[in-house]
Amino acid sequence: MTRPILVNGFKAAMVTHTSAGLWRHPDSRARRYRELDFWIETARTLERFDFDALFIADSLGAADVYQNSPDQALREGLQTPSADPSLAISAMAAVTERLGFGLTLNTSFNRPYELARRLSTLDHFTDGRIGWNVVTGLVPSAMAGLGIDPAVSHDERYDIAEEFMEVVYRLWEGSWADDAVIADVASGVYVEPRRVRPIEHHGRYFDVTGIHLAEPSPQRTPLIFQAGSSARGKRFSARHAEVVFVSAQRPDVLRRTVDDIRAQAAEAGRDPGSLRFISTLTVVTGETEREAQAKHEEYLRLTSVEGNLARLASTIQVDFGAVDLDEPLEFAETPGIQSVLANFTKLDPSRRWTPRQVAEYMALAGFGPFVVGSPAQVADELERWCEQAGIDGFNLVDIIPGQSFREFGELVMPELVARGRRPDPASGKTGLTLRERIFGGGMARVRDDHPAARHRYPDDDAIG
Amino acid sequence: MTRPILVNGFKAAMVTHTSAGLWRHPDSRARRYRELDFWIETARTLERFDFDALFIADSLGAADVYQNSPDQALREGLQTPSADPSLAISAMAAVTERLGFGLTLNTSFNRPYELARRLSTLDHFTDGRIGWNVVTGLVPSAMAGLGIDPAVSHDERYDIAEEFMEVVYRLWEGSWADDAVIADVASGVYVEPRRVRPIEHHGRYFDVTGIHLAEPSPQRTPLIFQAGSSARGKRFSARHAEVVFVSAQRPDVLRRTVDDIRAQAAEAGRDPGSLRFISTLTVVTGETEREAQAKHEEYLRLTSVEGNLARLASTIQVDFGAVDLDEPLEFAETPGIQSVLANFTKLDPSRRWTPRQVAEYMALAGFGPFVVGSPAQVADELERWCEQAGIDGFNLVDIIPGQSFREFGELVMPELVARGRRPDPASGKTGLTLRERIFGGGMARVRDDHPAARHRYPDDDAIG
Repeated sequence: MTRPILVNGFKAAMVTHTSAGLWRHPDSRARRYRELDFWIETARTLERFDFDALFIADSLGAADVYQNSPDQALREGLQTPSADPSLAISAMAAVTERLGFGLTLNTSFNRPYELARRLSTLDHFTDGRIGWNVVTGLVPSAMAGLGIDPAVSHDERYDIAEEFMEVVYRLWEGSWADDAVIADVASGVYVEPRRVRPIEHHGRYFDVTGIHLAEPSPQRTPLIFQAGSSARGKRFSARHAEVVFVSAQRPDVLRRTVDDIRAQAAEAGRDPGSLRFISTLTVVTGETEREAQAKHEEYLRLTSVEGNLARLASTIQVDFGAVDLDEPLEFAETPGIQSVLANFTKLDPSRRWTPRQVAEYMALAGFGPFVVGSPAQVADELERWCEQAGIDGFNLVDIIPGQSFREFGELVMPELVARGRRPDPASGKTGLTLRERIFGGGMARVRDDHPAARHRYPDDDAIG
Repeated sequence: MTRPILVNGFKAAMVTHTSAGLWRHPDSRARRYRELDFWIETARTLERFDFDALFIADSLGAADVYQNSPDQALREGLQTPSADPSLAISAMAAVTERLGFGLTLNTSFNRPYELARRLSTLDHFTDGRIGWNVVTGLVPSAMAGLGIDPAVSHDERYDIAEEFMEVVYRLWEGSWADDAVIADVASGVYVEPRRVRPIEHHGRYFDVTGIHLAEPSPQRTPLIFQAGSSARGKRFSARHAEVVFVSAQRPDVLRRTVDDIRAQAAEAGRDPGSLRFISTLTVVTGETEREAQAKHEEYLRLTSVEGNLARLASTIQVDFGAVDLDEPLEFAETPGIQSVLANFTKLDPSRRWTPRQVAEYMALAGFGPFVVGSPAQVADELERWCEQAGIDGFNLVDIIPGQSFREFGELVMPELVARGRRPDPASGKTGLTLRERIFGGGMARVRDDHPAARHRYPDDDAIG
């Protein structure tokens, strides 16, 4: 079989994640984001249809850029209110056996010693099905809430993240030997102390001395996801990410990012072919193209122009609220949105976009591929993106929670299986870690060329 | 009925919590602390036998005081390794309807803005069954791991905690009106922005500006547990705790603490009768006294003297390892353990204790009441403690995980029900928050005389 196309469910624990207004759809269960049963049902659906993982985004501040106020975002249930998605994982893990979980945790305010235990705990509780989406970014409202100096620059946050990774790798890989836990009832020894050692780190941002609090988990280092799109973010991905989360409006644009990160990974001494790339994906499908189109029109009627502008404004930290919604945007006049518009105008260089048009385009598509069509049309488009952009799979946006994942699972997954682009779900193995699910059996631990591997507990430090 | 005796299960996510060596018992499931199914089974057992809550202790550093090394603690599985218990709550909540959860989170390194969302999330996910055990203390090994200045004094940690509480109360009680979430499909408004307001706090330790990230949860402020035993800790409890976790070897000693905290609560303007007091409790029971005694002897054979000394050394931060195990301890020679020994010697003022005897006593009893006996004898002792010490209930230590809670549930709970000291489990209501379970229906929110109430969203701030 050609390399399988990875498919993750993509969510955030909030009413509006990407498509503002759609929570009003009669079939949407978006409002149930704060109910545990909603997450349990979501996980069951994803497992039933053999999705690889649930990838959960998160953010910690109000979306208050649009009209210099959080009001529109509050109306939409966008970013605020939210729930802490890490706290839903164990309930979802308990009802699934194969589904992975990609969890977003931030390196700009957590403490590595404590965060390392959190992820080791989840790796234990899920039998190795945990991935960590490493994020460094904080919007100004999050910094104001967390009490973080807003003067810390974007690049310095990556310096902090680099040091953070060094510390957690040492904790996960280097503090405990694989055979440290002997649990020997006869001698009364649970851990053999000679097979455990403290790490000692004194850096620019962190001072950490101590034994990793958790015993070795199935993957030790969780599968590392990262989504940096800046130059510095790409460098970070090239060094650390095993799965890179990327976005663009066109496959050829995306390919440049993918090629760039692979090249930088090679420079960093990693096998560039070992990185996997996944893109956001929005799909509206049905039994037929016509049914999908009708659904799309229904969704468009529910979208909120102002809600999507509030989301975009928060993402790029530029206020569209001060701009006439129907006045075409000029690059020079609206610095900060240039990179966004650059992607749009590449779709049609002759076209000048108004804020309303951008919002309508963003309403469903966001910053990734957007497909409306029959299962075969959707599968065609996924294959085209994989081939043209050089990517390996997708994070499927849950535009109508309670419906979108199921529809994709019922309609598109079988098409991908039939094309040999997904394994037969009936042959789905249990007992694999997330890293093995994506890279193959026997790959539970980081590869030797990953920077975490450098910190492994030395083999020769055996009991004397 | 006389006021019911509260009974919580008491655990930590580690192999050895209180009774070193007992993990080796053939029926013990202590080693399964890192398996989700273990926590799910534990929650089911507690719910089945109508326990009020599961109270989960936690610690973040190695127990490395004894012999100036973590080795003995590692051998015992004491404190290290551990798991993050907060991450098991949702799996346990999903299989229970009434059981509460008391979760330990520390104010000395967390950020209030983020911690507030975590607890609000759990309050949503559990339908209001969450309590927060507020702890300020960190052993030196935890500070070394977290990168916290060891010069921060015990009292300053309480100053930090006071300010921390002020911030989280404002977030939980004051940022959202009860009716802020309208979820109106017709107008497309999920939150009415005029019913939400940011908090602004600029204090000595925290700067927090922003809207609370989570919408109002059933209890808003989770039920506040606290266990301070120092003068400063008691003052903090008197101000903030709704349920105070206390310990002593004798009821009359404990009564002084209880009376002291109640008096201080009254001084702070709270109804002193509204505080509940719970003590640690260790029980070895069986169908008959003889069976219980036999079990006790079996347990004593499995206890680890050195393990219990390592635990005690870490608790009081004094190294017993340098002392002859069989040489009676002198107060003057061993400063730091005086307060512990004072409690022991009050049991028998003429007796001089050796470290080994202290360890053996500690092996099962720890610092609270210890009962070996038939169900009627255990119930007698619980009633005596409640009456003599003026306490309301107990945190029952899980000495043999997989067995102790079930035994207590099968044998002692029916005895307490028969005596009118526990409600009939058959009449157990679902749909109550933890605060209501403890204080009665209709008490989902903090009382008006609790300091959190001062920060409630003003009633008169209605939509104009």
